[in-house]
Amino acid sequence: MTPTQGFAAQSATTPLGPFTFERRVVGPTDVQFEILYCGVCHSDLHQVRNEWKGTIYPIVPGHEIVGRVTAVGAQVSKFKTGDLAAVGCLVDSCRDCDNCKRGLEQFCRNGAIGTYNGKDKHTGGVTYGGYSKQIVVDERFVLQVSDKLPLETVAPLLCAGITTYSPLRHWKVGKGHQVAVLGLGGLGHMAVKFAASFGAEVTVLSTSPQKEKDALGLGAHHFAMTKDPAQLKALANKFDFIIDTVSAPHDYSQYLKLLNTDGVMICVGIPPTPIEIAGFSLLNNRRSIAGSSIGGLPETQEMLDYCAAHNITSDVEIIEMAYINEAYERMLKGDVKYRFVIDMATL
Amino acid sequence: MTPTQGFAAQSATTPLGPFTFERRVVGPTDVQFEILYCGVCHSDLHQVRNEWKGTIYPIVPGHEIVGRVTAVGAQVSKFKTGDLAAVGCLVDSCRDCDNCKRGLEQFCRNGAIGTYNGKDKHTGGVTYGGYSKQIVVDERFVLQVSDKLPLETVAPLLCAGITTYSPLRHWKVGKGHQVAVLGLGGLGHMAVKFAASFGAEVTVLSTSPQKEKDALGLGAHHFAMTKDPAQLKALANKFDFIIDTVSAPHDYSQYLKLLNTDGVMICVGIPPTPIEIAGFSLLNNRRSIAGSSIGGLPETQEMLDYCAAHNITSDVEIIEMAYINEAYERMLKGDVKYRFVIDMATL
Repeated sequence: MTPTQGFAAQSATTPLGPFTFERRVVGPTDVQFEILYCGVCHSDLHQVRNEWKGTIYPIVPGHEIVGRVTAVGAQVSKFKTGDLAAVGCLVDSCRDCDNCKRGLEQFCRNGAIGTYNGKDKHTGGVTYGGYSKQIVVDERFVLQVSDKLPLETVAPLLCAGITTYSPLRHWKVGKGHQVAVLGLGGLGHMAVKFAASFGAEVTVLSTSPQKEKDALGLGAHHFAMTKDPAQLKALANKFDFIIDTVSAPHDYSQYLKLLNTDGVMICVGIPPTPIEIAGFSLLNNRRSIAGSSIGGLPETQEMLDYCAAHNITSDVEIIEMAYINEAYERMLKGDVKYRFVIDMATL
Repeated sequence: MTPTQGFAAQSATTPLGPFTFERRVVGPTDVQFEILYCGVCHSDLHQVRNEWKGTIYPIVPGHEIVGRVTAVGAQVSKFKTGDLAAVGCLVDSCRDCDNCKRGLEQFCRNGAIGTYNGKDKHTGGVTYGGYSKQIVVDERFVLQVSDKLPLETVAPLLCAGITTYSPLRHWKVGKGHQVAVLGLGGLGHMAVKFAASFGAEVTVLSTSPQKEKDALGLGAHHFAMTKDPAQLKALANKFDFIIDTVSAPHDYSQYLKLLNTDGVMICVGIPPTPIEIAGFSLLNNRRSIAGSSIGGLPETQEMLDYCAAHNITSDVEIIEMAYINEAYERMLKGDVKYRFVIDMATL
């Protein structure tokens, strides 16, 4: 085992602080890499504060991880020392069920292993995430990263990127489609970039009028204020897809009415309280509401390659490790454009 | 105008009784037919009792209408006197919007006209439905009926039939699919017949253990008691589709968990209270919940032709017109196998 420095929360109510733990030694199929940047996802905060229950303390969050390979096992073929590498939300799965075999490891029948707060089958303990100096992950769950993009802007692609890329690809969103992106945060800003890049006409729906300029700058074609009933009414039956990135409770039926015939509202942010839908808003226009959860390993690699080829990155604010508790508070206020990324050299 | 005998409710709290009203004279594109049978749909009861609000009294319900043509307008080409004919839930629409042009008249942008309690653009009043002796409808909204099937068993196809046929076709349900039908009533029994006929493996989910024998008799391959948690648990992640025919409030999240990867729960019965969904039950397995509403005219004709070709009918209990109020009470108790059909000769 290798002693490793990290940042952890010791309970739901204590701020994160320095924490030393052990990573496993590099096994035959493992890749070890020095973590250079780690994105800060809203799920980090949810789990640090035990808002989804089930958090095991101490917790070392972080699942938007990029770095440089420092060691590889004897059987590793995709990576060598010095390569860039990345890890997203998953570090393992059964690899044997139908979903794993189809590259949908996030829906592993036997339970995918989260990058943090997951059951670590090597140590028998819990997995520790990317708020740390280095990580050891089986090659199958490590992504290749192009050196074409600034590395710090790649980190958020590992969660915010794939979470929005995957449903847009699954539902074949592209030219001729009207797409609304509900909420312009970490997920929303990536949804705008991908949907526009795929050729769709993109409208950002937001409660904050001051986000209009940003939305258009990110590639959106239109902007509407969701607090203005007249603006919403004008958009009735307009959209083929709504990418709903909002994880606070909100009025789903109001947005369903904006869907055109056979339109789909795709939820990638989920509130802790149940979603409430007026049944007739589904029946009319044969509308659907769907969920989508990150993406599998092959699609995550495809997304990273697409981003490198099309120069798509996340808009980030680089922070020092010690700033994380303040960053969480700012995240709660929506005060981030559009993702905090920790410079791990500051740990 | 032609004086026409019917059966109407005069208020939300009065029983239905005899009522005479006027039908328009046969216009150039109209088909007039003598109503021989009319199915009794649960929506009739909802609207008679103003449970969906907006009922205009007196109301003459009935939108599962079959009969024999008595007169046609000069420009009518599909029908001649003596032909069998049918009318379902719609008697008109704008015919000009994109949805009408695609044969999705039920989603007419300018509002489809319901067969009863709709705005009658000929009389300026309200439309009166099939609990009556005759009806006059524009040819475009009249369906052709084969004489191969007993006519009384065809009537319910006009609503219960198309409401279940349409989503099964839209989502391309067939061989290799696992389909659950939730609720074995008027809609459910047709869903079982169609899904089985299309080659799917069908499981009926019901609260009533005494429906098992019927379910298998209708063509279902399996039956599960929804009140037994062990039976439900065993079906986790099993179904590609759930056709949800239940219009009473129920636990949607419990059934969503039965959906396999990319599974879709299709609601054709809608409770008056909002649908509540636990967000994570959508995210996992990339599940969807969708609505579907009757079907357009071309698809309704396709369904009737399919039924004639494959000998598919509704299981009915023939009643006299005067029995309608008692039939409603029995319907509320689920005491009907599986559709009441009024013999209009008894009016």
